[in-house]
Amino acid sequence: MSLYSDLFYSAEIRYLFSEGHAVDRMLQVEAALAGAQAAYNIVPPSVADVIQDCCRVELISMGKLKEGITLSGNVAIPLVKQLTQLVQERDPEAARYVHLGATSQDIVDTATVLQIQAYLEWIKEKLIHLENLLVVLTRRHRQTPMIGRTLLQQAKPITFGLKTAYWLDGVSRSKSRLEETKKRVLVVQLAGAAGSQNSHIPNEVKEAFAHILDLDTANSWHTQRDNLAELASVLGILNGSLGKIAKDVSLLMQTEIAEVLEGKAEGKGGSSTMPHKRNPVTCTAILANANRVPNLVATMLAAMPQENERSAGLWHSEWEVLRDIMQLTAGTVERSLELLSQLEVDDQRMRRNLEVTNGLIYAETVSLALAPKLGKAQAHALVEKACALAIDQQKHLKEVLFDQHVDLPNLEDLFKPENSIGQSLNIIDTILHQHESGKPD
Amino acid sequence: MSLYSDLFYSAEIRYLFSEGHAVDRMLQVEAALAGAQAAYNIVPPSVADVIQDCCRVELISMGKLKEGITLSGNVAIPLVKQLTQLVQERDPEAARYVHLGATSQDIVDTATVLQIQAYLEWIKEKLIHLENLLVVLTRRHRQTPMIGRTLLQQAKPITFGLKTAYWLDGVSRSKSRLEETKKRVLVVQLAGAAGSQNSHIPNEVKEAFAHILDLDTANSWHTQRDNLAELASVLGILNGSLGKIAKDVSLLMQTEIAEVLEGKAEGKGGSSTMPHKRNPVTCTAILANANRVPNLVATMLAAMPQENERSAGLWHSEWEVLRDIMQLTAGTVERSLELLSQLEVDDQRMRRNLEVTNGLIYAETVSLALAPKLGKAQAHALVEKACALAIDQQKHLKEVLFDQHVDLPNLEDLFKPENSIGQSLNIIDTILHQHESGKPD
Amino acid sequence: MSLYSDLFYSAEIRYLFSEGHAVDRMLQVEAALAGAQAAYNIVPPSVADVIQDCCRVELISMGKLKEGITLSGNVAIPLVKQLTQLVQERDPEAARYVHLGATSQDIVDTATVLQIQAYLEWIKEKLIHLENLLVVLTRRHRQTPMIGRTLLQQAKPITFGLKTAYWLDGVSRSKSRLEETKKRVLVVQLAGAAGSQNSHIPNEVKEAFAHILDLDTANSWHTQRDNLAELASVLGILNGSLGKIAKDVSLLMQTEIAEVLEGKAEGKGGSSTMPHKRNPVTCTAILANANRVPNLVATMLAAMPQENERSAGLWHSEWEVLRDIMQLTAGTVERSLELLSQLEVDDQRMRRNLEVTNGLIYAETVSLALAPKLGKAQAHALVEKACALAIDQQKHLKEVLFDQHVDLPNLEDLFKPENSIGQSLNIIDTILHQHESGKPD
Amino acid sequence: MSLYSDLFYSAEIRYLFSEGHAVDRMLQVEAALAGAQAAYNIVPPSVADVIQDCCRVELISMGKLKEGITLSGNVAIPLVKQLTQLVQERDPEAARYVHLGATSQDIVDTATVLQIQAYLEWIKEKLIHLENLLVVLTRRHRQTPMIGRTLLQQAKPITFGLKTAYWLDGVSRSKSRLEETKKRVLVVQLAGAAGSQNSHIPNEVKEAFAHILDLDTANSWHTQRDNLAELASVLGILNGSLGKIAKDVSLLMQTEIAEVLEGKAEGKGGSSTMPHKRNPVTCTAILANANRVPNLVATMLAAMPQENERSAGLWHSEWEVLRDIMQLTAGTVERSLELLSQLEVDDQRMRRNLEVTNGLIYAETVSLALAPKLGKAQAHALVEKACALAIDQQKHLKEVLFDQHVDLPNLEDLFKPENSIGQSLNIIDTILHQHESGKPD
Repeated sequence: MSLYSDLFYSAEIRYLFSEGHAVDRMLQVEAALAGAQAAYNIVPPSVADVIQDCCRVELISMGKLKEGITLSGNVAIPLVKQLTQLVQERDPEAARYVHLGATSQDIVDTATVLQIQAYLEWIKEKLIHLENLLVVLTRRHRQTPMIGRTLLQQAKPITFGLKTAYWLDGVSRSKSRLEETKKRVLVVQLAGAAGSQNSHIPNEVKEAFAHILDLDTANSWHTQRDNLAELASVLGILNGSLGKIAKDVSLLMQTEIAEVLEGKAEGKGGSSTMPHKRNPVTCTAILANANRVPNLVATMLAAMPQENERSAGLWHSEWEVLRDIMQLTAGTVERSLELLSQLEVDDQRMRRNLEVTNGLIYAETVSLALAPKLGKAQAHALVEKACALAIDQQKHLKEVLFDQHVDLPNLEDLFKPENSIGQSLNIIDTILHQHESGKPD
Repeated sequence: MSLYSDLFYSAEIRYLFSEGHAVDRMLQVEAALAGAQAAYNIVPPSVADVIQDCCRVELISMGKLKEGITLSGNVAIPLVKQLTQLVQERDPEAARYVHLGATSQDIVDTATVLQIQAYLEWIKEKLIHLENLLVVLTRRHRQTPMIGRTLLQQAKPITFGLKTAYWLDGVSRSKSRLEETKKRVLVVQLAGAAGSQNSHIPNEVKEAFAHILDLDTANSWHTQRDNLAELASVLGILNGSLGKIAKDVSLLMQTEIAEVLEGKAEGKGGSSTMPHKRNPVTCTAILANANRVPNLVATMLAAMPQENERSAGLWHSEWEVLRDIMQLTAGTVERSLELLSQLEVDDQRMRRNLEVTNGLIYAETVSLALAPKLGKAQAHALVEKACALAIDQQKHLKEVLFDQHVDLPNLEDLFKPENSIGQSLNIIDTILHQHESGKPD
Repeated sequence: MSLYSDLFYSAEIRYLFSEGHAVDRMLQVEAALAGAQAAYNIVPPSVADVIQDCCRVELISMGKLKEGITLSGNVAIPLVKQLTQLVQERDPEAARYVHLGATSQDIVDTATVLQIQAYLEWIKEKLIHLENLLVVLTRRHRQTPMIGRTLLQQAKPITFGLKTAYWLDGVSRSKSRLEETKKRVLVVQLAGAAGSQNSHIPNEVKEAFAHILDLDTANSWHTQRDNLAELASVLGILNGSLGKIAKDVSLLMQTEIAEVLEGKAEGKGGSSTMPHKRNPVTCTAILANANRVPNLVATMLAAMPQENERSAGLWHSEWEVLRDIMQLTAGTVERSLELLSQLEVDDQRMRRNLEVTNGLIYAETVSLALAPKLGKAQAHALVEKACALAIDQQKHLKEVLFDQHVDLPNLEDLFKPENSIGQSLNIIDTILHQHESGKPD
Repeated sequence: MSLYSDLFYSAEIRYLFSEGHAVDRMLQVEAALAGAQAAYNIVPPSVADVIQDCCRVELISMGKLKEGITLSGNVAIPLVKQLTQLVQERDPEAARYVHLGATSQDIVDTATVLQIQAYLEWIKEKLIHLENLLVVLTRRHRQTPMIGRTLLQQAKPITFGLKTAYWLDGVSRSKSRLEETKKRVLVVQLAGAAGSQNSHIPNEVKEAFAHILDLDTANSWHTQRDNLAELASVLGILNGSLGKIAKDVSLLMQTEIAEVLEGKAEGKGGSSTMPHKRNPVTCTAILANANRVPNLVATMLAAMPQENERSAGLWHSEWEVLRDIMQLTAGTVERSLELLSQLEVDDQRMRRNLEVTNGLIYAETVSLALAPKLGKAQAHALVEKACALAIDQQKHLKEVLFDQHVDLPNLEDLFKPENSIGQSLNIIDTILHQHESGKPD
């Protein structure tokens, strides 16, 4: 993070991943455990009250905590130590009920899930916003013709709305995936030292624990890490889909193309010594993230074959990496919102760029129009020759055909992009309709 | 592949990824396209018949095809050329209807989906088999006590059935994920040169096309690659869960632990000069794959930000990588079936290993049993001292406690592993019940 | 490989990685071992002769070999079995001298090094060729002005020769790195069952063994895999540098830019229905590889923490991955040679593109020229206003300045790109001189 | 970082990567630029003094800086703005000489190299320390027999010193690689807006600039990123070699093996409820890093194909990733020093573990000893039968052979591990001698 905290990351959701917040979530888990155990008389209710009172992050010494992490290898051990000390000061008898029956991983994993829970709520709202921006763009540019480009070459006309509709389609599927993931990810971890639970954490306690935390129960996943790997993958996919939007915008912003521009802001993306520049600053941040996140997902997948009942290293490698995936993705989402809400679309320039090839992009259209009259082969040959002439003489294909007195009454029409956009409008309408009707994909 | 084709890969499903089969699937797609267009009179039915007759892989010259791929950059272009030639020889007029309105990517992508379709059927069956093996193991060893190990250290007793139940749980979630993926992945691609479809491939043709191929329709995904990335991720996750099983088995097979062994086979895993060795050969193959697949998934994710209406390179990077992910995963699944169907479990050795620490693994159990009598603090202190003595004198903790006349009538029972397995049996029963009732996760 | 064997890979070097060749190299290693041992009377010379006579790949049954690999987990075990059988048939007494004192990994690793040795010779020659092509391009276009582009925006003029000189500089460093790697990689492996050698493979045998194979000796690297990881990394870096060339070319080939084109070939990269297209087919293959290789390098790095005296899985994950890295890199190099040897440079178009911004790219030049007269601040203000006018009125900046009677006698000169290329020519000459004088970097 | 800053990272070198220090390095670069330009009268010396006086990090507002980064996409733009403002306040005329002729990337890249320079000095010293620890361990345990393990199975005896000698060998090669990297990495970047330099930064200024910063000059690497990729790779390799040490130690620490232990520290790695545990806490941190770094290296490699004269995203993806690689590697090195300086080696346990197989690990030794008397085939058959008996009757192989009156006068000796360690001592001496004589590898 550091210097680039507001470039690659989201300022809005940063608090969620702060040290303090992370510790606070762990204390929330300890409090919930005591509460659940009190409900079943495993912990005396009055003791649970004391424990819960002590579960406040402002009582914790962060310095001592970090020292303890280095010695013990995870944050729960020194945190429980401090918590126990706090409880003991209030009620010596109560101290032995702290963290009762639980293991470090129960606390760390469940606290992580609580962060994920808040994160997924945040990101869902953002993705709805993103979809809405894309809907607006798609509607506005439903009929804005532009050239479609394949392998970085001009190919056939489409509309800008078709492009944004596909962007929308990809984002919507990511939203669906995140929803599907919830049922597997938003679950507590409470399984004790070796994953077998124990008399202090029977199933009813586990259920109460989950209920207090507004999470689901599930079979323990202490060394079954597929659900976190799934979350990582799904966020990786979202990054990819948003990276695709930034890739397109950055290419369309090129000086020689200039069909789409990032919104201007005082001091943004410009250069006093190069007044013609409109740097794709926001795209740049998104594309940087798009180059980083896939390999972080690989780390999460590589961390899966964890040894026996708790891993020596692989579990530990998840902690910061999953957090980084979430934070970078949040940054990508936030930057994408900025990008799309301020996007400038130059439909005049799109029209001009459609003419860059002097009509060659319509060669097939002409050929197809001539076929009924001349037969397909002859039509093709005629157009091929005309194209060669057009290239050679740097003339417009339409002009060449006029010169050759090609007999097509609607020749002008053949060179209008709106007549070459295929099913663009239908496809757009389908995607918009699916979006409105909530069809997941 | 090559030399290691039967080690890291599945011999059974290999045909699916052969050159011939891949080309055959593409021809199937071309045939379906002609058929769908015939249904709507875009192609004359008799012409469609000719095209379909020519869509046979044995008519294709593989040598010429590969040459053509290098020039054109994908397999569809030279394949369509050969197919057109074949059709032309049969009916010159028909030739112009070959591949009508379609683009290379339509053929390559849809053919890939057909391979995925067959692959997912195959793997589903295999995963059912794998689950069944795990159910049998879990039932058989529901009550087989063994030591649970955390950070590679002995921790607390569990049962071997608990371990296999968790393995089962992970595999079942992967099976669910693969099912959820189908609705997004098993869809045709048919969008023409720039993703906008055209008059030759209107929506009704696309639907007929999908129907013929037994696939779903979907909005075009020519540069929205999230669904393939999802498939890759889900297979990556499955690899991770199976890698975890292999990791456990390989660790449990260690000479000094020897609780579980890969099944013997003539010539397998042994060494004539080292008669004591039982090499984890099958685990080794699975673990090798577990180290490879995550990074292939990263490539699929990194391939997502594809440029405009067709990528220059990223699309191309998917072809072999997705195939490798599918093939390596098939190998992992096949090896896992071999591993689990022949697994030898030495419950005697498990019992002996529970004694390796001279009873120290029961220290907490004793402490908890003493607490009601002595108070928690005193109980803990007594046991701590006894443990120190046991370590120092290399005596069994039980013996030390006897020597100290510790007053616990059921002292023997406290040192029986079956009394320290927590909720193992309940957890096992829950997982087995969920499996039987088809609860997805 | 398969269908894409000639697209992503090198046809020329493919034989090196064939099954037969790989087995042949292993037999060569066995033969060298027997020869080295014969030199020290550990194996009777006549026996060594028999063994060496049997070390011929055509005597080996590939089918049986592959079966054996699945059972034993590596190729050396079943290969030694077949070799022993062959020797036994010729001389029963000789059989016990086959593979004497060696372990499977000695054979597999040393054979891999032999493949690397041949590979590095091949690639060195290719890189020399590549450098020569870049030298020719650089000389030819030393003074060909073009616009430099940053963040995909037009920035300042450079020359095309400056661009290719930097390409050359990167390739040269990769060549140096490959040379530096040799001293660590081109070494034998001969350490026996646990890495401690034994009486059959004393140091003098190891040295003779290395000498026969034209390799160096080194301390055993059976679980110290840094050298192979280094080779993988260095190849990964070469891929990156060549990927950068392909990235540039593909961007410069864009329809709207069209400054550089892949060479035309019959049937290459074109489209009969889209006559204006010049697809960057060769770049596409290189860029696909550039997206794949980094993650394969990651697998090699992740394979390094190998367990004790031989890994259970990580070693095995290297085999195909290192081969793939070598083969993909060979493909990248071969494609790059094709790309650069046939590159078409359109210097007219480069000149026209320099005018796309209507002179704005020279704003700073004008400002600097005015500063001595007007003072820097006033000069800057004047130019800034002129630029705004130029953009607003879509006029050339030069024209605006003329209209405003800006008093600069050499105004024309300020708008000539050759006057704005900075030190381009000096830098080019330095790089060419370094190349000629063999300065490594 | 955050909570785990002292677990996965180095506290000692952390300052180098702090925000303040990073900005300070950039200011140092600006100051050096002014100084170099003053030496050639491009900047008036008195102006250079003013600029240098203002290049102090305590004058910079970090808050404003971060805001500016988000708008401009890199840190240099808003930093130069603040610096210019500071200079202007001191001397309005001087302001226009700030950052003269340079571009943002010149500052960011050169400042990064300054961090690398300090980092490489630090790490070199640490690696010398690490080597020394390994030398001490190797000397001490030159003759300490232990079992060598392959595929996690007991194989043949080695000595612990042989293991540590190989560890040493790997670390030494990494040290050599880091040295070789310096000549390519420790170079300035100073090339201006499009990589062509300009009249303000001629070669002589670049050389003076490099001299002031104690760096070398080199051709510009603004989009040739191979050198940073090389540094990343070499650090990745070092992580792998240290990960291998941690892997070995964590395996040898297993309760059932317990041959080697991490040093005890108050509160380290233990468990009050599981008194037998000695968690490999330090190994765990190293192994976590070993799972993370390879994929960060992949990101650096994937970032190489940067577009034209400055990338839109790939350059930006390097910033935090290279820093993370450096910091994680520093953590790995620091943890490894702790691990090795406190390592406890239990040679008694090593001896006991050599007996775990009841002498089967010596089967080949016996067979070889019998061969001269009985012939190889008969010897092998006899030993094979004896091994089967030993396994079946759970007797020691030596005992079985005694019972069978096998006629070998030195039977006892055959079962002494020190007689089965092959060339271990020679290999150790070679490695130690190479280390002492400074032979790079």
